Amino acid sequence: MKALMKAKPERGADLVEMPIPEIGPSDLLVKIQAAAICGTDNHIYDWTPWAQARLELPLVFGHEFAGEVVEVGSAVAGWQVGDLVAGETHIPCLQCYQCRTGRQHTCEKMQIIGVHVDGAFADYAVLPVSCAWKLAPGTSPELGSIMEPIGVAANGLFKARIDGCSVGVIGCGPIGIFGAQLARAAGARQLVVTDVNPYRLDMARRIVPEATVLNAAQDDVTAAVMDMTSGRGLDVVVELSGSAPGIAQSFELTAKGGRVSLVGLPSEPITLEMTNAIIYREAIVYGSTGRLMWDTWYKVDAMLQSGLFDPMPVITHTFDLSDYDRALQLTLSANAGKVILKP
Amino acid sequence: MKALMKAKPERGADLVEMPIPEIGPSDLLVKIQAAAICGTDNHIYDWTPWAQARLELPLVFGHEFAGEVVEVGSAVAGWQVGDLVAGETHIPCLQCYQCRTGRQHTCEKMQIIGVHVDGAFADYAVLPVSCAWKLAPGTSPELGSIMEPIGVAANGLFKARIDGCSVGVIGCGPIGIFGAQLARAAGARQLVVTDVNPYRLDMARRIVPEATVLNAAQDDVTAAVMDMTSGRGLDVVVELSGSAPGIAQSFELTAKGGRVSLVGLPSEPITLEMTNAIIYREAIVYGSTGRLMWDTWYKVDAMLQSGLFDPMPVITHTFDLSDYDRALQLTLSANAGKVILKP
Amino acid sequence: MKALMKAKPERGADLVEMPIPEIGPSDLLVKIQAAAICGTDNHIYDWTPWAQARLELPLVFGHEFAGEVVEVGSAVAGWQVGDLVAGETHIPCLQCYQCRTGRQHTCEKMQIIGVHVDGAFADYAVLPVSCAWKLAPGTSPELGSIMEPIGVAANGLFKARIDGCSVGVIGCGPIGIFGAQLARAAGARQLVVTDVNPYRLDMARRIVPEATVLNAAQDDVTAAVMDMTSGRGLDVVVELSGSAPGIAQSFELTAKGGRVSLVGLPSEPITLEMTNAIIYREAIVYGSTGRLMWDTWYKVDAMLQSGLFDPMPVITHTFDLSDYDRALQLTLSANAGKVILKP
Amino acid sequence: MKALMKAKPERGADLVEMPIPEIGPSDLLVKIQAAAICGTDNHIYDWTPWAQARLELPLVFGHEFAGEVVEVGSAVAGWQVGDLVAGETHIPCLQCYQCRTGRQHTCEKMQIIGVHVDGAFADYAVLPVSCAWKLAPGTSPELGSIMEPIGVAANGLFKARIDGCSVGVIGCGPIGIFGAQLARAAGARQLVVTDVNPYRLDMARRIVPEATVLNAAQDDVTAAVMDMTSGRGLDVVVELSGSAPGIAQSFELTAKGGRVSLVGLPSEPITLEMTNAIIYREAIVYGSTGRLMWDTWYKVDAMLQSGLFDPMPVITHTFDLSDYDRALQLTLSANAGKVILKP
Repeated sequence: MKALMKAKPERGADLVEMPIPEIGPSDLLVKIQAAAICGTDNHIYDWTPWAQARLELPLVFGHEFAGEVVEVGSAVAGWQVGDLVAGETHIPCLQCYQCRTGRQHTCEKMQIIGVHVDGAFADYAVLPVSCAWKLAPGTSPELGSIMEPIGVAANGLFKARIDGCSVGVIGCGPIGIFGAQLARAAGARQLVVTDVNPYRLDMARRIVPEATVLNAAQDDVTAAVMDMTSGRGLDVVVELSGSAPGIAQSFELTAKGGRVSLVGLPSEPITLEMTNAIIYREAIVYGSTGRLMWDTWYKVDAMLQSGLFDPMPVITHTFDLSDYDRALQLTLSANAGKVILKP
Repeated sequence: MKALMKAKPERGADLVEMPIPEIGPSDLLVKIQAAAICGTDNHIYDWTPWAQARLELPLVFGHEFAGEVVEVGSAVAGWQVGDLVAGETHIPCLQCYQCRTGRQHTCEKMQIIGVHVDGAFADYAVLPVSCAWKLAPGTSPELGSIMEPIGVAANGLFKARIDGCSVGVIGCGPIGIFGAQLARAAGARQLVVTDVNPYRLDMARRIVPEATVLNAAQDDVTAAVMDMTSGRGLDVVVELSGSAPGIAQSFELTAKGGRVSLVGLPSEPITLEMTNAIIYREAIVYGSTGRLMWDTWYKVDAMLQSGLFDPMPVITHTFDLSDYDRALQLTLSANAGKVILKP
Repeated sequence: MKALMKAKPERGADLVEMPIPEIGPSDLLVKIQAAAICGTDNHIYDWTPWAQARLELPLVFGHEFAGEVVEVGSAVAGWQVGDLVAGETHIPCLQCYQCRTGRQHTCEKMQIIGVHVDGAFADYAVLPVSCAWKLAPGTSPELGSIMEPIGVAANGLFKARIDGCSVGVIGCGPIGIFGAQLARAAGARQLVVTDVNPYRLDMARRIVPEATVLNAAQDDVTAAVMDMTSGRGLDVVVELSGSAPGIAQSFELTAKGGRVSLVGLPSEPITLEMTNAIIYREAIVYGSTGRLMWDTWYKVDAMLQSGLFDPMPVITHTFDLSDYDRALQLTLSANAGKVILKP
Repeated sequence: MKALMKAKPERGADLVEMPIPEIGPSDLLVKIQAAAICGTDNHIYDWTPWAQARLELPLVFGHEFAGEVVEVGSAVAGWQVGDLVAGETHIPCLQCYQCRTGRQHTCEKMQIIGVHVDGAFADYAVLPVSCAWKLAPGTSPELGSIMEPIGVAANGLFKARIDGCSVGVIGCGPIGIFGAQLARAAGARQLVVTDVNPYRLDMARRIVPEATVLNAAQDDVTAAVMDMTSGRGLDVVVELSGSAPGIAQSFELTAKGGRVSLVGLPSEPITLEMTNAIIYREAIVYGSTGRLMWDTWYKVDAMLQSGLFDPMPVITHTFDLSDYDRALQLTLSANAGKVILKP
């Protein structure tokens, strides 16, 4: 089969031929139909310090995907050949305290598909059944492949109730757009979205027209939010930029007693004036990583099936897997929504 | 001034002339602009056992109202003549444990406007400032007068999150319609509404077209709900009928681990098979009465200001106060939405 | 091996010889060291309508147990021969919505050990690894065998916070005593325990001396509680009697806004005056069944390991398995704490 | 009367004679019986930047106090001359969103006794009735005067449940000791306390002997905690140091999915590696300031009345008001527990 392999400790990747992998008794073999590119994949392609610190080469990368089950492990119940499947990226051990108390996504011995084990930019991938989400027959592979990043937005957003709340989303790349769509669908009564990238701001305006979209580099975001909220601030802010100004602004926009979900990953330590930002404000701050297994998946799936939002416009480009270089360059530029590779 | 008085322990009421009441240092005097009829008022007019057990006559009744402040008590801060005001019905003592821990609506020494003290079916009414909700300038008195019953629906519905949930509303009189509207606005992904009264079912279909409206006397509600929810049941049910079949059905429709809010007041003890209804189901049941002071008011007000729903179509009739007999007969018949009296 | 079998649809049971059962790939074979008698076992022995409606005969019963692992299924990870194990009674399907959202204990396709499949009143039992709780080396089998019923108490009690709360426990059989011990260990500031059985009241007074123990048939429980709580009522009540008077009293003792956990299973429909009991009181009612898998087990285990309470005095009798008739008669009489059978 | 006045913008304070203040219609006049020294008072005495930024001179300071009501404002209900009272420091406006939704302690127009208005290091003080907590007859003034700082600990600790949790307290000055006592009384199953000051570590060992007390400057706190918790980390950490190392360590000690309450006020921005500290850990962080009005007061009071803990040993010194210089020097040295001034 063909697979996109990170073989050398330098920028780039190689499309190689390799044998179809063998599955274990608790695995599914998935024929990949669509795989989306994530920021993690950019780190790997670009061979950043983040990637250097984590990967053992060679590795097939890619972890947001959907496909068809073509082989079922001997100890697997509830799945059969021909089922459509989307992949959850986090492989839980199922035996630690976290896994056994509803928190598999923060497993103490977590492994990650496409980071620690071979991933999905390939014709076939091995998927542990503990990471398999069954898609309704007829689900488009493209939609299936973005269920995982929609779940990232959902996990951050839904730490507590959204219904009737005023909500801010700091950063409107694909996950920010998904977050804004989910917030709207979930009954947010006011919605503010910010970014500094014109492409992404355009995308937000087009896909979430109900939101107030602000350019954090040009607009006085705090003044606008205080004006919208009678000086009270927002009930909920979801931080996706991972940047120091984004994090500081998240708190500045938040009402006393309000909530901030930190989802974007800072690449270095953040300096924050915590006394006013968090303590006097009595803010509640939620770290958020991955997706609840499987609460978030059920929630997103149910909202999709009820037609409450349509994430497909966030997919702006589709490439053949062989065109991987162009696709990864494009996502590195940040001038794209979600980009799909099809093997 | 003119006032609708319950003077005699028998069916009916009398429109009388009486002096404009005097206010105390912590009160507002309100010139009534609109007052809505509640089921409680029907009990009083009809002189049911419920009313006989509670009222000391004579009494001016009516407690859902809006008007203009025409006099401000000497110890009152933050209000002035000309302000528009809606009334909260529950008068808290402000000194008990309930009042001092955010639960004024279940005050241990609660008094109720129009039940224990003179109410609002009159030209003027006295309103303790602790029960006053300031309306934005220009708010229509009719809308102001139904803020209180919208709050009843909101208190029951919002005991926990609604966003992304499947929701059932048992009973679609005015409060049920408000509840269905709020659920939809708050991001409910599925919505089922039931009643047995054709007028009310019609009203639900017209005003909340997104809801699945079922006649509990004719349709197999449980089968329909299980079909909609892949056999899982609803996440949330709000019970407004106060009837034994309505309460039993509320649990039957609820998912394992789901929530039922009991809002409708049963007029007699209810017999319920609790083992399956509540215990094996691990249902969470919320008793719900009145409105949170003031969380519910803020939430409803903010949702209204964001244009998330429009409760005005629930008002089906408006009468002059002098036409009280016709208005109260109409609401007793249940073939009406919200009915307004204007002095 | 020897096993206590329910073979005939009539009162009683038979100690029989049968082959040691064979395990599947996901099972453990457990050499039983201690098995405790539960009310369910009394239903089975006594052949009550409850048992008649559920059991297919023949069946080995018994489901509260601990023992040593003597064989490990081929697909099982994390267990080895010689491990000590306690059994969780509820066998989850692991594939339904409940199982995949942290609620395996309310699985939509639940099976129960000793009710639907052969149980633990025997020399050996088969335990699906999804129901296996590893005991620390050196744990006494008797303690291991009562972890399951302690968990029943914990699940009911810990629906929400107990720390600093006033707590009532209605019914002080073994689960009531466990609940009272847990409440005390968990920082309840006031603790009231009731029953009508003198043996159980004595047991409560002896084992939980910090509790106020009241005879619901003789004492004015409501007056006592109101006196203890300045008229406010209890923050939390755990109902274990399953009786109509016990349920009614649970609400009567509860503060406005307080919580009632219904754990005891009524054998018939309950008639309750819900308007005051639940609605005007704004009580929160939790149905509670089984134990969270595995939050409750971790919590109980950690509290035991910290020495916060000692459940062993609740074990009042130990019998050889061959003496089963005497043991089951004793538990039927209710004049015992927890009774252990040892094969 | 005598009063300790901050009159000049420099280090120190003056004991002056001044008239007994006059009260307004909603105030109480309190004859001070005991007033405790808080870190805020040290800032004022020492004339730090914190104090310079906030105070308008002259000002009588001191805000942790108890005394006897000697005069009652004309609009005050529920109080009479002779009542014992403790003071809540935060004066709420009672009209903003925060005040009207159960969050008076984060009032949008907050004023603080002893910072914005004259305080309690004096023979008499004016107390708005909205800040008055009635003490049971016979309560010692010293206990009354430390109810406020005990409440600071309680607000931070009780953001969510403590019962059965493992708890860490970073910093064991008086509020840390109160927090450790409350945690133990509230059913914490494991308790770790750290500081770097030998006097405070000694105090912790003496007053909370159940705690594991560690010197953060000498002991490997993380290793010790991981050892105590099977590598999982603590369920809850309360940060009282306000220092960068204390804050970083708080997260390091916290389990995945665990909670950190930030109570100690950093005097400058804090640099924190948030990706691992908060985000991958999915920590929940609570800013905490002041006390809930009045949930925290009721909870602390009830726990005290149940005898669950005894805060009096935290009071290590009592001085006559005239000896204020010695008292304030002592608290500045940090080699004291709570220090009381008596007028």
